[in-house]
Amino acid sequence: MKIIDGGVTVAKGFKASGIYAGIKKKRKDMALVYSTVPAKGAGTFTTNVVKAAPVKWDIKLTKESDYIQAVVLNSGVANACTGVEGDLNNEKMAKAVAKELDLPVSSIYTASTGVIGKQLPMDAILSGAVTLVKELEDTLEAGDLAAEAIMTTDTYPKQCAVSFEIDGKEIKIGGMAKGSGMIHPNMATMLGVVTTDLAISKELLQEALSENVKHTFNMISVDRDTSTNDSLLLLANGLAGNKEITTKDKDYETFCEALNIVTTNLAKKMAADGEGATKLLEVQVLGAPTKEEAIILSKSIITSNLVKTAVFGNDANWGRILCAMGYSGVNFDPDMVDLYIESSEGKLMLVEKGMATDYSEETATKILSSKEVKAIADLKAGNGSATAWGCDLTYDYVKINADYRS
Amino acid sequence: MKIIDGGVTVAKGFKASGIYAGIKKKRKDMALVYSTVPAKGAGTFTTNVVKAAPVKWDIKLTKESDYIQAVVLNSGVANACTGVEGDLNNEKMAKAVAKELDLPVSSIYTASTGVIGKQLPMDAILSGAVTLVKELEDTLEAGDLAAEAIMTTDTYPKQCAVSFEIDGKEIKIGGMAKGSGMIHPNMATMLGVVTTDLAISKELLQEALSENVKHTFNMISVDRDTSTNDSLLLLANGLAGNKEITTKDKDYETFCEALNIVTTNLAKKMAADGEGATKLLEVQVLGAPTKEEAIILSKSIITSNLVKTAVFGNDANWGRILCAMGYSGVNFDPDMVDLYIESSEGKLMLVEKGMATDYSEETATKILSSKEVKAIADLKAGNGSATAWGCDLTYDYVKINADYRS
Repeated sequence: MKIIDGGVTVAKGFKASGIYAGIKKKRKDMALVYSTVPAKGAGTFTTNVVKAAPVKWDIKLTKESDYIQAVVLNSGVANACTGVEGDLNNEKMAKAVAKELDLPVSSIYTASTGVIGKQLPMDAILSGAVTLVKELEDTLEAGDLAAEAIMTTDTYPKQCAVSFEIDGKEIKIGGMAKGSGMIHPNMATMLGVVTTDLAISKELLQEALSENVKHTFNMISVDRDTSTNDSLLLLANGLAGNKEITTKDKDYETFCEALNIVTTNLAKKMAADGEGATKLLEVQVLGAPTKEEAIILSKSIITSNLVKTAVFGNDANWGRILCAMGYSGVNFDPDMVDLYIESSEGKLMLVEKGMATDYSEETATKILSSKEVKAIADLKAGNGSATAWGCDLTYDYVKINADYRS
Repeated sequence: MKIIDGGVTVAKGFKASGIYAGIKKKRKDMALVYSTVPAKGAGTFTTNVVKAAPVKWDIKLTKESDYIQAVVLNSGVANACTGVEGDLNNEKMAKAVAKELDLPVSSIYTASTGVIGKQLPMDAILSGAVTLVKELEDTLEAGDLAAEAIMTTDTYPKQCAVSFEIDGKEIKIGGMAKGSGMIHPNMATMLGVVTTDLAISKELLQEALSENVKHTFNMISVDRDTSTNDSLLLLANGLAGNKEITTKDKDYETFCEALNIVTTNLAKKMAADGEGATKLLEVQVLGAPTKEEAIILSKSIITSNLVKTAVFGNDANWGRILCAMGYSGVNFDPDMVDLYIESSEGKLMLVEKGMATDYSEETATKILSSKEVKAIADLKAGNGSATAWGCDLTYDYVKINADYRS
């Protein structure tokens, strides 16, 4: 299993493109991912009751389509809260791509991200679709362009890829994703596309993805706001030539492990690049009675505005961590909790059995000043553990979101 | 029913004091509220699993004590996560006051607010207790001093009082409360003390308070962080001379109505004075299937960082309101929702049946620029309604909380 350069174009038979179509003011705003042969499609989507038009479209296709061959994405406009007109526009976007690729419209996933409540600018979208197909390439650079074109407030494109062996064949998985506000995924991330040349049944592909997001994208939060557009799409086209995986055997486990590397990497990048963030905050909860409780506790810490501002200020105000655990809904004995902080600058125990140790504030501040900071809470009440990722809450988060539309 | 000046000292037989005892660097930090005769005591407290020492103490007294006669409060140190030593220090604080007042310690409520994890500075607390008793007075000014002494990051003291008639007797209710961070009360507020000279049974006093907080303090949020110290205490000493209320009759209703005025007023002041806040945000949800669902929806909107930053930026980014409703957990039809904003500058419909109206952004910005802004969402799916109060999320919230301890 090794991490390699690139994103959605590393696997055999996948091409991509990313262009400026005229939806946003200046930056790239449309992307296309295409498999030269029919691929199995799997997806996980937002649990928000308010679902964007492309989310509704993709949910239908994931259920009904035998194969998927392309994903067309745009940034700048979310196509959410846009009524029947929004649904029709979404279908037009899929149809335009289908026509250029000479494919049935039922094989085209769509995804949108940006401002809620505005209709897609269809002239830009339709001419953009033509250009996207013309510019499809299987190079790493084409993957870069696609990853760049789906960004909104992201400060850098997010990609990850791995290569490994199954059945004597080299398999590759590559993905791209974008954040970076309204990020509190529940069943999926804001937007993510992962491609692989693995041969696997549609059912197992979906199961692998659904299980995967629970521990990766669903464990990150930037602002506790679950978007209307969250979509994680996974295409597997079988071109690696392995014998198709149809049972949960060792090969399936290997695939899940590789998928986990890609999605964990993308999820952490998304948390670290949260709107206005200066650092990545990782929270490990250990010793909880159950894994479910560890998940709830770690997410409660990661989403606390008070924890996030303290991390921004490099302030070891650990009471806020215990407080966030306390209101999470999980029952535990505060007088048993040990708490540590850790970074490249070292590791420090702040709390032992619910009370402050005699730690050095200077050392604590030094540890918290790193770009990646970890907090570890041990409840000593069982074997449940979980890891969640978030970021600090800064002036820039407020700035970005106080005038997002201007 | 009329609103009058003052706070905890307006009702007959109540005295108060507020002093600088040396817990904080400069500002007043200890307060005492005292009833010259035994009073019925009622309280609601944080649901946080991590409960401060005074919260545990007050919960016990509320269950076991026949009467309460004083409340001693300090700011600067929360006495939470302080172990057995914290419990003993809390009891010492109560005992010191009991001794000076010649009362049983079981009649002394305690309350603390401030940094979590630090022990109370007992020298300051014990000498403060003596001074507090010496300086007790029944004047409005004494109430002012007490309200000032419980502040942490509050920018002004919060008091409210009403006067009304029951049984031919004039009854008064007066209260004080403090915010202004870690405010997302769940069964109570950060710290609040309400006094009345009404004669009422202990059971009904507690019931009135428990019901009251559901629609007042529990409907506000500054940062979705439920504190370890939330306590709302209510003392009724019967000196107004009315026939004791022992059934839920018309007089009980009148009392509940008056109590509601005081606590709603204090709750709104707490929301408006949230850390760093520049304005009060009121959210009304109408037409929900049930009241419970309306409560969940209104709180989901009021706590969204993205809604709060948009309000700070005077930006009518209504998609964030619909998004926050969508992830609240309540099921509803987004295509039925109407959305309005309202302030002293006028009222404007932004969304009709889930889609943007042709509203003027200029008018919207003007409405949102007021100090008190209201958002109204009508689901048109039933008769459930609720109102929640919050504030905007600003640079100053980040500033205050990034260096709270320094």
